Amino acid sequence: MVDKTLETLFHDTLKDIYYAEGKILKTLPKMAKAAQSPELKAAFEKHRGETEGQVERLEQVFAIFGKPAQGKTCDAINGILEEGEGVLEDYKDSSALDAGLIASAQAVEHYEITRYGTLKRWASMLGLEDAAKLLDQTLQQESKTDESLTVLADATANVTALQGAE
Amino acid sequence: MVDKTLETLFHDTLKDIYYAEGKILKTLPKMAKAAQSPELKAAFEKHRGETEGQVERLEQVFAIFGKPAQGKTCDAINGILEEGEGVLEDYKDSSALDAGLIASAQAVEHYEITRYGTLKRWASMLGLEDAAKLLDQTLQQESKTDESLTVLADATANVTALQGAE
Repeated sequence: MVDKTLETLFHDTLKDIYYAEGKILKTLPKMAKAAQSPELKAAFEKHRGETEGQVERLEQVFAIFGKPAQGKTCDAINGILEEGEGVLEDYKDSSALDAGLIASAQAVEHYEITRYGTLKRWASMLGLEDAAKLLDQTLQQESKTDESLTVLADATANVTALQGAE
Repeated sequence: MVDKTLETLFHDTLKDIYYAEGKILKTLPKMAKAAQSPELKAAFEKHRGETEGQVERLEQVFAIFGKPAQGKTCDAINGILEEGEGVLEDYKDSSALDAGLIASAQAVEHYEITRYGTLKRWASMLGLEDAAKLLDQTLQQESKTDESLTVLADATANVTALQGAE
């Protein structure tokens, strides 16, 4: 039996997040369309552009690792996005829709934060410093997105949700 | 049609994380059993005890909110845990098992971090300061668990995974 090492795990997790980013890329326009406030629409549209860049960075990481860029079903992101779709349906036309969409988007961000954090450390251990740098760039971007969603929620969406329809 | 407000969203998300904690509580002994290193076994067992306390805190939050403690299927945690089970099967008896289990556990932690962070801010907006404090206690605990898993990974599991079977 061939042993599975950090290299196998790095490769599998890279495929996992590559699949996840592809799904997120398809979901963001739906969230932008559903968002009620122009600020949240803009935030989702901006993040769509960033996500395209993150997919490209992952393709560079695959190249550094010497493997073709390839996805592998990620049950975690499927569950997280499914829950987001549930919020979108349940809160449609309600005052709390944007607050709910932001919370769902932050669950996505946190999944990415943990995965990129892990992948970055594994890349360093494997001596792939250029890959670690690329993964860290995305990690920083995801953390910033998460923080700016918190600011947006507190400034607008949560207030709208609190006040309700008048 | 009755409008859905921040109160509805807070209640729904409370049910979501209550269900999630229940599932995590059932999964942790399985992870402790599967872990190869005594340190990781101990970490999962310790976190099981903490999770029991977190469930109790959630029950106190439900009481403050004036609603019965009740769960609601959380697709996100189901997906995250399913992915963890996959790692457990795929990496069984391999050098990278513990590194993979830690990464899966950190994905769980990050889901909890984002949910408790959101719930805490919503509780404050709803004027439920005692609930916000309880939610913050759990948030701090989850963040610490996440950090200590990173330390454990770098000190032991990732090194074992890197070296492979000798």
